[in-house]
Amino acid sequence: MINSTANKQVRRVANLVKKARARREEDRYVAEGLRMCQELSPEQVEILYVSESFLKEHSQDGFQKDFLERFRWEQVADPVMKVMADTQTPQGILALVKQRHVSFQEILNQPGAAHLMILETIQDPGNLGTILRAGEGAGITGVVMNETTADIYNPKVIRSTMGSIYRVPFVYVEDLEAACIQIKEKGIRLFAAHLKGENAYDQEDFTVPCGFLIGNEANGLSSQIASLADTYVKIPMAGKVESLNAAVAASVLMFETARQRRNSNRRLTAHRKKM
Amino acid sequence: MINSTANKQVRRVANLVKKARARREEDRYVAEGLRMCQELSPEQVEILYVSESFLKEHSQDGFQKDFLERFRWEQVADPVMKVMADTQTPQGILALVKQRHVSFQEILNQPGAAHLMILETIQDPGNLGTILRAGEGAGITGVVMNETTADIYNPKVIRSTMGSIYRVPFVYVEDLEAACIQIKEKGIRLFAAHLKGENAYDQEDFTVPCGFLIGNEANGLSSQIASLADTYVKIPMAGKVESLNAAVAASVLMFETARQRRNSNRRLTAHRKKM
Repeated sequence: MINSTANKQVRRVANLVKKARARREEDRYVAEGLRMCQELSPEQVEILYVSESFLKEHSQDGFQKDFLERFRWEQVADPVMKVMADTQTPQGILALVKQRHVSFQEILNQPGAAHLMILETIQDPGNLGTILRAGEGAGITGVVMNETTADIYNPKVIRSTMGSIYRVPFVYVEDLEAACIQIKEKGIRLFAAHLKGENAYDQEDFTVPCGFLIGNEANGLSSQIASLADTYVKIPMAGKVESLNAAVAASVLMFETARQRRNSNRRLTAHRKKM
Repeated sequence: MINSTANKQVRRVANLVKKARARREEDRYVAEGLRMCQELSPEQVEILYVSESFLKEHSQDGFQKDFLERFRWEQVADPVMKVMADTQTPQGILALVKQRHVSFQEILNQPGAAHLMILETIQDPGNLGTILRAGEGAGITGVVMNETTADIYNPKVIRSTMGSIYRVPFVYVEDLEAACIQIKEKGIRLFAAHLKGENAYDQEDFTVPCGFLIGNEANGLSSQIASLADTYVKIPMAGKVESLNAAVAASVLMFETARQRRNSNRRLTAHRKKM
């Protein structure tokens, strides 16, 4: 059992929790909590750390035999876990995880009609995590981000994804403009919610392969990226609201896409039955 | 100019920023930042506090004559502003504002088809603020909350409403169950997103007067409140997502309601033109 907060492993984990740069250099990140750890397979995990009291709590339920023993793992004293964890009152289990690497080309070549989210400098970790979680629910095929978007391995992002970080393909690209041009060349239609939009978003056809450009919380999309959109759409607003929170705007567009695709499938099925 | 952080007014404001109880007892709250202050009228405001450097910055643009002089106001030293404000780097202006009081009956009697959000124990200030902001955009007619929902006058809520707090009618009720029963007696249909929902949310008619029940982030709706829904709807999910963030789920339902009402108006207008 690790008893000292000065232990090398402890300092390494605490550093990976706090610093994006350390995560990048080591190609690792930290996933906290039982639920997040249970979704991981041994191949993804370098090592699990479990606190003394967490082990004690789970001494009768087969947790050690059925789950823990499949992994490399180490017991740590409770005060040590507190130093390693990002949360104020840690659950008592965390995993040191290998980063996923999906290439931009793999995201472009996902099966089915593309439904991409293209994020330019989204800064709030909660917004990024929420877009991943809602996006998985809405069936998006991938997330493409520029490098000034928040770090997806930030503990706050990971928590707010509720596990979607393991499942939604994502990639950071050096040149978002070039990436958008490649996306368009692939026949994927780019939409941006924009004040200049003529049609309400629900008047456009999102059943075709498409991607949505989502801009920074304070400044929106840069003019270079906005100019790459094939179509500007507006989200009609009542009252004096000028814009929506980035994660809400993204969710409204993603779930409209899911709705249109669901209903178009239903119409197709009804049509086939008639034939 | 107030120079001392021990000044009575300074301590009062700092206390109102930090404590829900103080806000309740004094029937006041604090709105921070120029944008939030500019939307207020002198009748709503007890006093404005402006930092020395903010005044200096705005010495040439008519700010003092055109805006500030309409209010009771006081200058404070920069370190004093830092003690009064909730943000780490305050803009330098904040207002001590009288709380709004809209009664439950006034919310029930809003003109037009009701579009209510009924919140049970929403805990996260960001979620509550986001529901107000997106809700104003989607044209909701009011928000009804139980008393264990987060305090709407919490500085984080106020910031994330982006001004919607001044415009969307809201009320806290002691007995949410009784309130729901009164809402139903008024002919308003209650919907809840629920695992037991048979139909996808977009297959239901939200053009009728309706209200949406939104539950706590971790535990969802209580069984008492859920049982008052006239109809359970589901938000179909791809992937392994079990539920959405409360503000996202609320936004998907609110913007579907706005979409249906907009399109039903368009159909009605087209129909009238033909006649």
